[in-house]
Amino acid sequence: MRKSHLIKPVLGNDYPVISHGKGIYLYDKEGKQYIDGSSGAITANIGHGVQEIAEALWNQAKHVSFVYRSQFTSDAAEMLAEKLAEYAPDELKSVFFVNSGSEATETALKIAIQYFQEQGVFTKTKVLSRWTSYHGITLGALSMSGHQLRRQRFNSLLEDFPVAPAPYCYQCPLKDSYPGCGVRCADELENIVQAIGAEQIAAFIVEPVIGASGGAIVPPDEYYSKIRAICDKYDILMIADEVMTGMGRTGKMFAMEHWGVIPDIIALGKGMSAGYTPMAATIVSDKIMNTIESGSKVVMSGHTFSANPQSAAACLAVLHYIERNNLQENAALMGDYLQNHLQRLQWKYSLIGDVRGKGLLCGLELIKDPMTREPFELSNKITDRLLSICFEKGLLVYPAVGGVTGFSGDSILISPPLTVTKEQINDIIDILDQSIGELTNQLISEGLYITEATS
Amino acid sequence: MRKSHLIKPVLGNDYPVISHGKGIYLYDKEGKQYIDGSSGAITANIGHGVQEIAEALWNQAKHVSFVYRSQFTSDAAEMLAEKLAEYAPDELKSVFFVNSGSEATETALKIAIQYFQEQGVFTKTKVLSRWTSYHGITLGALSMSGHQLRRQRFNSLLEDFPVAPAPYCYQCPLKDSYPGCGVRCADELENIVQAIGAEQIAAFIVEPVIGASGGAIVPPDEYYSKIRAICDKYDILMIADEVMTGMGRTGKMFAMEHWGVIPDIIALGKGMSAGYTPMAATIVSDKIMNTIESGSKVVMSGHTFSANPQSAAACLAVLHYIERNNLQENAALMGDYLQNHLQRLQWKYSLIGDVRGKGLLCGLELIKDPMTREPFELSNKITDRLLSICFEKGLLVYPAVGGVTGFSGDSILISPPLTVTKEQINDIIDILDQSIGELTNQLISEGLYITEATS
Repeated sequence: MRKSHLIKPVLGNDYPVISHGKGIYLYDKEGKQYIDGSSGAITANIGHGVQEIAEALWNQAKHVSFVYRSQFTSDAAEMLAEKLAEYAPDELKSVFFVNSGSEATETALKIAIQYFQEQGVFTKTKVLSRWTSYHGITLGALSMSGHQLRRQRFNSLLEDFPVAPAPYCYQCPLKDSYPGCGVRCADELENIVQAIGAEQIAAFIVEPVIGASGGAIVPPDEYYSKIRAICDKYDILMIADEVMTGMGRTGKMFAMEHWGVIPDIIALGKGMSAGYTPMAATIVSDKIMNTIESGSKVVMSGHTFSANPQSAAACLAVLHYIERNNLQENAALMGDYLQNHLQRLQWKYSLIGDVRGKGLLCGLELIKDPMTREPFELSNKITDRLLSICFEKGLLVYPAVGGVTGFSGDSILISPPLTVTKEQINDIIDILDQSIGELTNQLISEGLYITEATS
Repeated sequence: MRKSHLIKPVLGNDYPVISHGKGIYLYDKEGKQYIDGSSGAITANIGHGVQEIAEALWNQAKHVSFVYRSQFTSDAAEMLAEKLAEYAPDELKSVFFVNSGSEATETALKIAIQYFQEQGVFTKTKVLSRWTSYHGITLGALSMSGHQLRRQRFNSLLEDFPVAPAPYCYQCPLKDSYPGCGVRCADELENIVQAIGAEQIAAFIVEPVIGASGGAIVPPDEYYSKIRAICDKYDILMIADEVMTGMGRTGKMFAMEHWGVIPDIIALGKGMSAGYTPMAATIVSDKIMNTIESGSKVVMSGHTFSANPQSAAACLAVLHYIERNNLQENAALMGDYLQNHLQRLQWKYSLIGDVRGKGLLCGLELIKDPMTREPFELSNKITDRLLSICFEKGLLVYPAVGGVTGFSGDSILISPPLTVTKEQINDIIDILDQSIGELTNQLISEGLYITEATS
């Protein structure tokens, strides 16, 4: 084999070459089929190889692919912004386009800070977040992320924005339990705000359902309304990072709708383009935009490819596809079906400590001891091992490591395209069943795991 | 007109809607033609509406648009990496793909820091840069940028990485003059390294020709070899930010080739995709990659859309187009032609203080006084005014403001697609001639400008 010049995630490892994809399936050049049980990185929300998206790319490219936002606009970008504004709650009506989820959360951070500057407040420059969180890999986005495994090399360059306990009931960071706790993790934000000083804090950013850092962690029902109230009380903006959860993934267009709470800014990415082009967006409330428009009139950011018509046309076609095929509704229905079947696996395998999620963003947490909920050591690489076994059997799932202590904690996301059917979910469950069984046996034989539960 | 939901650079301003483009021309929905004299943001390097790129997008989309790099690779991404490695100097053979120039310079920063960590050195975490510089808008990229107008809102969140004087002879920051100075601006880097401590410094990043912050500033011939020597002496990596200068723009594939100096890391963007898709890249030397492969084996970064085959196929088609049409050579020839004509304009208008550049990355600096080289006040908005006059007449040029003091300093980039012909350059020069004449007259009548020179 020729030497590859492409830097791979793990240097020296082999990665199969995908030749084509169709729906939830990907095929490598050897002809092996994979079920995309993770939509790549929770991205390929409408499945692979959708013909009408290819046609949208072609039709736009025939006219014009690129215009620079400081000079021009385009129908494609205008229509996409209009469509997103239509989906978003009433107050959120203005859209800034960028190229990645990281750029979207950074844009949210910048706009939040600028909003206060426009009012003459220059001290509000912190965008606080929760410990179990991931908001992106650029240094500003990483500053907001509690994901220690991704932070640690660059900690000296990062802001210490993660400060709040995550609403992570299965492994409560406050060692309390719901509902007796009174959702103390939300109240704790108020203590932190008082300790730091509200005059320092521009915004609080949350993933509505915690994704890459914890594996589909869903907070208690009261949590977000309490957070919203604290933000309002202290004049702090609320940013919803819906990069992973947005665009129908959880059975609602935006996951925050599950709790009826309206943030001030929404960050989108991943499923917005469903992988057909790199594009992401930040949706901003009228309150913020009116303040900037009455002030400097210039949102201080800029990206070369921002609002490029080529990417906008692809995203627009993706949104039409989601709408016409009721994929949001399918995500809700199939999400219930998937979660029911995951719960059956949990009864079978004590290695599965928790099953959780919303719609088709589902998570399994793997634990060493079902009584104490103690996680495995990071060095046991439990998540990686489960991923490899599934991969071997032709199923893709997504790792979410480090949720418990920042370093330990094993969970996976099961998040197939929103087009998935019951029969396809049955196939996913079959492979997961075999894989978790195989991993359990391996761990027992290696003495890493002791269990009374058997199938 | 319906309310737009798209956040524009200046809120409330109107931006024409582009309907289509062909070669160096863009057309708005009213039928007005614009000469793209700036390739958008120095991006549309092969011109607009190139049919074979549309076909490449279509052909890739028919097979598969998205695979996640942690799971798979693709022919398109492998071939693109191979092509870039073929263009790059011998030592630079490994490519990490990202979505934007900002992400490319941040990836360069991260890899530089990690390179030293793999050797047990954890103190080298600074990536120094020059005052007159721009390396991107995400907070890590902005930390390396001296562009005060873009930094100022977020200074409290940024690292103070700009420390070195720019090799900006026309407005020498050291108040010296070449060649008598002995290129003291390069020596000054050594003083700074000693003052900060080499053990703190991972890398030094430069734009080979300074772009958005200064308007095509070209250093003296000896400069980069001196910089390279200082980097080597103190075990500091040299990063070339070729986001604007790369892929033939200056008449060489990489601008650093003009000086025969080989950096350790190259960041690419803009012209790499020529606007047909958001994609950028970081090219890394064998020395660095071997160190990481012998160590942790994991380059600590990750972007959802990294190496996506849809974007890779578009870039690959762009590179083939550049190659087959000898656009690099055309850039060198037409660049000379353009610069000659810009110099004639300089003789005609004393408002033009300096004409500079390499290949088709050309700059004009506008000054208040040709003797003292004093810039206009920022509040006079000279660059904006020239842009507007040109725009009105159907010519796009690119602003580069703030180069002299970080706040004042007016210059523009003239950087048409690399496909441009002599006749088209004549048209560009004609409009520039009229526009600068008109601006001169306006400024004289407003009492902002006093001149003896007349046409």
